[in-house]
Amino acid sequence: MQALWLEDRTLRWRDDLAVPRPAAGEALIRVLRAGICNTDLEMVRGYHPFTGILGHEFVGLVEEGPRALMSQRVVGEINISCGTCPACERGQGTHCARREVLGIRGRHGAFAEYLTLPAVNLHPVAKEISIDAATFAEPLAAALQIQEQVSIVAADRVLVVGNGKLGQLIAQTLALTGCQLEIVGRRRQELPLPNSESMPVRLTADVTPGSFDVAVECTGNSEGFGVARRSLRPRGQLIMKSTYAGRMELDASDLVVDEITLVGSRCGPFAPALRLLAEGRVDVSPLIGSRYPLHRGLEALEEARQPGALKVLLEMGGTTGQEC
Amino acid sequence: MQALWLEDRTLRWRDDLAVPRPAAGEALIRVLRAGICNTDLEMVRGYHPFTGILGHEFVGLVEEGPRALMSQRVVGEINISCGTCPACERGQGTHCARREVLGIRGRHGAFAEYLTLPAVNLHPVAKEISIDAATFAEPLAAALQIQEQVSIVAADRVLVVGNGKLGQLIAQTLALTGCQLEIVGRRRQELPLPNSESMPVRLTADVTPGSFDVAVECTGNSEGFGVARRSLRPRGQLIMKSTYAGRMELDASDLVVDEITLVGSRCGPFAPALRLLAEGRVDVSPLIGSRYPLHRGLEALEEARQPGALKVLLEMGGTTGQEC
Repeated sequence: MQALWLEDRTLRWRDDLAVPRPAAGEALIRVLRAGICNTDLEMVRGYHPFTGILGHEFVGLVEEGPRALMSQRVVGEINISCGTCPACERGQGTHCARREVLGIRGRHGAFAEYLTLPAVNLHPVAKEISIDAATFAEPLAAALQIQEQVSIVAADRVLVVGNGKLGQLIAQTLALTGCQLEIVGRRRQELPLPNSESMPVRLTADVTPGSFDVAVECTGNSEGFGVARRSLRPRGQLIMKSTYAGRMELDASDLVVDEITLVGSRCGPFAPALRLLAEGRVDVSPLIGSRYPLHRGLEALEEARQPGALKVLLEMGGTTGQEC
Repeated sequence: MQALWLEDRTLRWRDDLAVPRPAAGEALIRVLRAGICNTDLEMVRGYHPFTGILGHEFVGLVEEGPRALMSQRVVGEINISCGTCPACERGQGTHCARREVLGIRGRHGAFAEYLTLPAVNLHPVAKEISIDAATFAEPLAAALQIQEQVSIVAADRVLVVGNGKLGQLIAQTLALTGCQLEIVGRRRQELPLPNSESMPVRLTADVTPGSFDVAVECTGNSEGFGVARRSLRPRGQLIMKSTYAGRMELDASDLVVDEITLVGSRCGPFAPALRLLAEGRVDVSPLIGSRYPLHRGLEALEEARQPGALKVLLEMGGTTGQEC
């Protein structure tokens, strides 16, 4: 089969790979569509050592597995956990000490014609959800993780730093809380929101220092972190929602003096993500930048790497002609 | 009067200063005893620009001020807030945007024979509390701030990193929660606890990585921060309780992947601090390293600067012969 293979920080397209065999309890999934995430780009830059097929945002069709899932469209949770370690026993399977992570750690990923995942990781996709929209289930779940960790209410002034694909998705989920939301980025624009007027993107230079209760850092660079930090009032909360390559310098005393809370935030709950997509309360269509067939995957990653790039999707061969 | 004067990162003893005049609403306090804190040492190293009298941990006698406080022993909250800014309106006077801070920002401090503070900042000291113990009211309040910010319960595994004066004081306040407490430092020792057996200090090398729910960083250096970070399980909380000189490097992705929460923690509530001292539930006597008269203050700071130093107290002239 075809896939995008990462090895020694080099990604290449291959068409000589065998279709994987699902282990007991696993399903074989034919990938319909996959999304390129900032973490994929960081993986190629060497953020985390990995040899194998990249990719973790996908929607696919079950071709082998439990009868209840057969021929269903599914999305999949990307952490494959052991179920018995202390983290799993606390119900935090995404933090399993022995976890594999699809396309990131110990498990071939979604930039391929086929992948395998444990059946327990799979969620059927309701018919109301398009293939495009379903591809966003994983990043949307990750966006929703913010509200799992930090209570955000209508009275809160919340700043999203970064108006790329992640920042825009997070802005949509935060808008659901009714909070006083602003989003800043490198260029002014209007972001469409479902069922409401559009949201203006301001420039980072326009942020009033010390005026936000919560800031969500979506840029993955120390400049964005600095914008988020300065925007916060004392005792404000800074959510770190991106992948950072290398080490970051910060003023630790400044965090102590202002009693700032930093919250690292990663994978989130799929069920509400799928529900919001089915209900049309999150609209991912404005977030899609372009589409490439899998064999042009290297070009796709190159496009995703451009500043301000929106979501780049990989369309697998088998999906030609399918509804989007 | 005598005082320790900081200017251009140089501390010197002076005896040519006028006794300050209290403004309306303020009290004049004759300082009985003062404690040297790590922040004082960092101030001399240039952590924060300040010209004036250093020092913020003290107990004194009110010589001028409201009738109800006259001749009373008092301790004082160190943040002088405006009462009208957004932080003050949120009830967070310690974060007042226009605050002065005793011996730190815009207000002469406690390493002097006299100081002034607004009467609203003062707390009478119950007779059960010795002068020595009262000197610890401010750092004890700061230690208690941890529990104001983070819920700590008996089931929690909590690590204190640093067995200096701050770490030991914090260990005593955390022990009150009944949590599973460990303290690590550069040397093994036994710490006395009030009304219970002693607490062993282990070496940092003995910390099992990923095994604590909460870690409290009390060293103020990046090595201590690293120990605290590695000790935490995923979704653990790292309390930053010290003053850090300069910038600190950290692995931001690591915080995101493990969804760690960092909490900056500073000044805390005086009322419970004084109550715990009066009830004898915190015992500060083992934390006292040595005492110096004010005119030997430079020697006192030099001793406080030594690795492993305990609390160094300054005894003002007028207190000679007073009970400790």
